[in-house]
Amino acid sequence: MRPSALRLGVIGLGRAFTLMLPTFLAEQRVRLVAACDPREAARERFTADFGAPAYAEVADMVRDPEVEVVYVASPHQFHAEHVELAAAAGKHVLVEKPMALSREECDSMLRACHAAGVVLVVGHCHSFDTPYLQTRKLIESGRFGDVRMIQALNYTDFLYRPRRPEELRTEDGGGVVFSQATHQVDVVRLLAGSSVIRVSSVLGRWDPERPTEGAYSALLWFQSGAFANLSYSGYGHFDSDEWCGGIGEMGQAKVPDSYGSARRRLQQIGSMKAEASLKANGTYGGSHYQAASQVPAHAHQHFGPVIVCCEHADLRPLPDKVIVYGDAKMSSIDLPLGPSPRFEVIDELEAAVRGERAPIHDGKWARDTLTVCLAMLQSAGSMEEISLS
Amino acid sequence: MRPSALRLGVIGLGRAFTLMLPTFLAEQRVRLVAACDPREAARERFTADFGAPAYAEVADMVRDPEVEVVYVASPHQFHAEHVELAAAAGKHVLVEKPMALSREECDSMLRACHAAGVVLVVGHCHSFDTPYLQTRKLIESGRFGDVRMIQALNYTDFLYRPRRPEELRTEDGGGVVFSQATHQVDVVRLLAGSSVIRVSSVLGRWDPERPTEGAYSALLWFQSGAFANLSYSGYGHFDSDEWCGGIGEMGQAKVPDSYGSARRRLQQIGSMKAEASLKANGTYGGSHYQAASQVPAHAHQHFGPVIVCCEHADLRPLPDKVIVYGDAKMSSIDLPLGPSPRFEVIDELEAAVRGERAPIHDGKWARDTLTVCLAMLQSAGSMEEISLS
Repeated sequence: MRPSALRLGVIGLGRAFTLMLPTFLAEQRVRLVAACDPREAARERFTADFGAPAYAEVADMVRDPEVEVVYVASPHQFHAEHVELAAAAGKHVLVEKPMALSREECDSMLRACHAAGVVLVVGHCHSFDTPYLQTRKLIESGRFGDVRMIQALNYTDFLYRPRRPEELRTEDGGGVVFSQATHQVDVVRLLAGSSVIRVSSVLGRWDPERPTEGAYSALLWFQSGAFANLSYSGYGHFDSDEWCGGIGEMGQAKVPDSYGSARRRLQQIGSMKAEASLKANGTYGGSHYQAASQVPAHAHQHFGPVIVCCEHADLRPLPDKVIVYGDAKMSSIDLPLGPSPRFEVIDELEAAVRGERAPIHDGKWARDTLTVCLAMLQSAGSMEEISLS
Repeated sequence: MRPSALRLGVIGLGRAFTLMLPTFLAEQRVRLVAACDPREAARERFTADFGAPAYAEVADMVRDPEVEVVYVASPHQFHAEHVELAAAAGKHVLVEKPMALSREECDSMLRACHAAGVVLVVGHCHSFDTPYLQTRKLIESGRFGDVRMIQALNYTDFLYRPRRPEELRTEDGGGVVFSQATHQVDVVRLLAGSSVIRVSSVLGRWDPERPTEGAYSALLWFQSGAFANLSYSGYGHFDSDEWCGGIGEMGQAKVPDSYGSARRRLQQIGSMKAEASLKANGTYGGSHYQAASQVPAHAHQHFGPVIVCCEHADLRPLPDKVIVYGDAKMSSIDLPLGPSPRFEVIDELEAAVRGERAPIHDGKWARDTLTVCLAMLQSAGSMEEISLS
């Protein structure tokens, strides 16, 4: 008999929830049974859509006996507090990335979940995406020898999408290291299958009107002897999805002739306050909210071009396939779509909650990724390499 | 009246000369008037082809009064000695990259040329390629603001092309840092327009049968505040020419279905001695030498994908155009072919010899590129960053 669906209570009906909603709607394995948001309009919409209570206070929601798993999708700076409230109420936790903004917060979240005996999964993060999980399986097969070098790059318009003010302040968790390196570092850690022991990084802060880092380059050294070369620009010029078959981050085919649209839209807004409103209005419950299309994506989600150099092959995860550039020949492995856009998160969460399989993306895993991201900020700030023990 | 052609004497009729020959044949501005090579067959062929003397001894060739410019195309380890012999004979010098294998050799070459009052140009190097020179001109126009980040990567089959034994020994100038980073570092230095002040690097030596570095990743920091992210793999798997419109390093359209051909050919050879013979036989005067096609290349030569992030645009030099990804729109600038495959070298050499324009690629320039390459070797070897004053 199929086990009953996981009963989710959502903290924060903002952008992260909006991006996960197509998954929740398409999945039989989860059911939304409660939510919490400071915005009354979002609460009303949630209750209308799901026939379930929506709370103004986190403490009230986590106590709701219907809630089995709390999905923490509040802004970064509230993750620690909300995870600890959920754990104290005995609820399993799915928390959005980045897990938190400091190692101390991560430690505290880990302790709280351990003490309460509840599962902690951190995501969605792009290292859940099938192209990377399948590439990791190919590596683990041993057919191509050890991983030696990983190249990961991503050129997006991240910095010009509508933002709340704190998303443009690094000290409050803004900027591309907290928001985007968390993905990229997680992906290369998954593929390397080893601990990061050394970090050298440099940041780009090039637009005084968006005063946080919008770009970086970094070298990561792994315990295994492998190394990774990372780079990112969110300044909205070159778009590296061109090197991913023209498929965007969410698995959608990119719209031609949309060049520069993020910047143009932002120029029409005028103020930071208007920008924050625009972001809020575009998310669930907002006046301009449009439900994500239920048309299946063209391909899997991804986080930009990645090349994994193994001893006997380069592996190239793409949104619809993994290309294997072997010693003698090139081949490719198709990646059929799953039951929902981010089904991999539900796979891992469900197996963990049912006690069937420990999650890859647990709290320790995510803390280690945050540690690397913090080392990137520190390395760039102090102009020196950082050793991680 | 058109000045008479530069009268070139060539030291070394090997692979570098073979790659420059289409240029010399197509150019009215140069004439081959002498050569020098230890291989009798190469000398005989040169004399038959050009009706000019071919010497066994460098000292004899540089004294030939017909010779105006000496083109030093001998193996790396002989560059210093041969440049100094040419300078002592009062001849201008074009020397292949890398200029030499140590800073001391470079200094000695610079002193010799300065004392003799002769011109020293170092090349061909891919930073002569029109896509990079034109991108540099776009940057210098100031329209896009300062250069902030440069990404340069290249995935080739370099390590599996036929080699002489010393090309697989780093201490003798072998491996991809001396042979390939010289190109890539030169290109990013040209584009950054600033001095490298700090280097962090890691090398890959993954094939015990080709015991030199075949891959690297590096971060370079420039005086200006810009930084560059470099990576290279010569292990013959993924081919990054895919991201350059399918155009190869020499400007040729890549042949489909040639995947793995370098490795396959090498496997059929058997011994290092046979491999060195294969290389010698395939160059000028060798038994299997085939003159390069006189069919014009499809596009300019290049050294892999490069993205230059400026404040207000990403510039992307490609073999046939430069794409400008601006704040508001994307545009591109076509790059028509020149009179010969590497006409840019002749442009710079001729202008320098005629006293019309100081060369970009002079001895000091090339010494600084070598300094960065040596710092890459040192940084990777000592597992620490290197500061350059």
